[in-house]
Amino acid sequence: MKHKYLAAVDIGGTKITVSIVDKKGILVKLYQPSKKKGNNKTIPSQVDSMINLSCKKIGIKKKDITAVGIATAGPFEKKQGNLVLKAVNLCGGLSKGRKNRPKNTWKEIPLERELKKKYKNLQIENDATASAIAEHKFGAGKGEDNFVYVTWSTGIGAGAFVDGKVVKGKNKNSLELGHIFIAKGDQDLEVMVAGPAIAKDYGNNTTPKQVFEKYRKGNKKAKKIIQEAVKNFARGLAASNSILDTKLFILGGSVMNDHDVIMPLVKKEFCKSLASMTKEVKFKLSGLGKHLGDLSGLTIIMPKEWIKQWQKSKPWKKSPEPIKLK
Amino acid sequence: MKHKYLAAVDIGGTKITVSIVDKKGILVKLYQPSKKKGNNKTIPSQVDSMINLSCKKIGIKKKDITAVGIATAGPFEKKQGNLVLKAVNLCGGLSKGRKNRPKNTWKEIPLERELKKKYKNLQIENDATASAIAEHKFGAGKGEDNFVYVTWSTGIGAGAFVDGKVVKGKNKNSLELGHIFIAKGDQDLEVMVAGPAIAKDYGNNTTPKQVFEKYRKGNKKAKKIIQEAVKNFARGLAASNSILDTKLFILGGSVMNDHDVIMPLVKKEFCKSLASMTKEVKFKLSGLGKHLGDLSGLTIIMPKEWIKQWQKSKPWKKSPEPIKLK
Repeated sequence: MKHKYLAAVDIGGTKITVSIVDKKGILVKLYQPSKKKGNNKTIPSQVDSMINLSCKKIGIKKKDITAVGIATAGPFEKKQGNLVLKAVNLCGGLSKGRKNRPKNTWKEIPLERELKKKYKNLQIENDATASAIAEHKFGAGKGEDNFVYVTWSTGIGAGAFVDGKVVKGKNKNSLELGHIFIAKGDQDLEVMVAGPAIAKDYGNNTTPKQVFEKYRKGNKKAKKIIQEAVKNFARGLAASNSILDTKLFILGGSVMNDHDVIMPLVKKEFCKSLASMTKEVKFKLSGLGKHLGDLSGLTIIMPKEWIKQWQKSKPWKKSPEPIKLK
Repeated sequence: MKHKYLAAVDIGGTKITVSIVDKKGILVKLYQPSKKKGNNKTIPSQVDSMINLSCKKIGIKKKDITAVGIATAGPFEKKQGNLVLKAVNLCGGLSKGRKNRPKNTWKEIPLERELKKKYKNLQIENDATASAIAEHKFGAGKGEDNFVYVTWSTGIGAGAFVDGKVVKGKNKNSLELGHIFIAKGDQDLEVMVAGPAIAKDYGNNTTPKQVFEKYRKGNKKAKKIIQEAVKNFARGLAASNSILDTKLFILGGSVMNDHDVIMPLVKKEFCKSLASMTKEVKFKLSGLGKHLGDLSGLTIIMPKEWIKQWQKSKPWKKSPEPIKLK
């Protein structure tokens, strides 16, 4: 197939981003808060409307979009062969028993079934897996056969290449690293160490970023919280290393903006695991940083010839200012 | 290449087993305690001698052995591209600080380099990975694209297929499941739940098997120990499921002889992890049981035509009595 325009979609708990690209670069980028009211078809409809609007903005027809790539928060289930989204931050109906019951009351989103009706050539991946693919083609994972990309943000997500191939799993949920248990009790890694946990542990409406600032100033409480969080994060990395025998961790996500504090602590803690499996492992920051969201959905549908060209010209570095929709 | 005879080797901490097979079945099987005295070439030499002796027993020449497949306890490191064995139970020199200092004082075994000198066509795999390959071809993993084989024995080991391919990792150490942390503190899964831990927790020189017997008779102490061990084992399975998004666990190893007690407890505990990732997962016992050791080293070198024939005729079921060497 001759590709003309591609649509890349990034679905997160707070916002959805749509970019339209051609062979040479990103033409337009829109974002909008993820809709919380409606029914389980609201999010697929929102994605479709946003693609329509993007096409209008640059004066192209919807049928000129030859492929749509979606990177989304997971996890997935499969129904009649189609991926169904079961992400708590997008399906409020899953969060029974939570204090601040969200407005969106659906329990799953038939994402693939709904969007397949409108887009023939559709690819959906877990966002961290798509990020790993993007890092492999354009970022810190270039040429690497064995690496794990981990995002430390409001959640914990990961994607991996093993033996030269991306790892997907039966329902494309590899690696739901945030949901492993690394300590006694029933709190998983994400509940223990993701951004909100760091903020909550400090209290007083402090942001994670502020806790890191306090750490740098020698605040004892901040020090204890950060050290404990990093220790547990490193245990999560060690678990994925024990399981996948990887060579490199690529770390990204908003919490990793404070990598000056995190990196030395992570490495130290990580090496407490089995020496013969940890000593060769390297750590890098995401090679794509703030562009990772755009490139994730895109890379999974990008034709090979385009990839070669983009590897040379790196057009994401001069992408247009994103337009905010209400 | 036209294969005539294959040698399958199983290297464990207590014994080494060598089988010679032809297209139709297993011709001879020898075993011997793993040598503890000598130098870091002692184990490779022992393997070679055992293959020589096996050839003699059935009156064939060593050069008629067209391939050697080795399944061994890990972990591995790589030196000049060759796998080097760093298994604590085979390299006593690694176990500094242990009370009963073992007699073998080497810290690594240059297994691949030494054996490549004698056997051109040599394949080495982690034993649990080789077991996963054997289960995939001949056992409970037939036709499965996503499954994890786990052995619960004097250690904890695992091997996996993801997206239809066996997972190896950079140094063939996938999955060193025993070395993940699933609880607070610095004890890994293996230290906490492997056979010796169950025995030690009960005390009085009790074997793991006896602790299970006491469990069935309602002994409270045994009940607590087994429940805690199974809980932690299940958390290890849940971690590998979160990371690999698998479909099936195949459980084997000596502790799994007490599967009547273990299986219901494991399933219950496993399902406490993220519902959308656990609810479809199935559990099975090893389809090869006591034959798994023989078939592991063998399957990794077996030509396709033989595999088809063996799948039909299942010749491992009538393998000869193993001969014990001193």
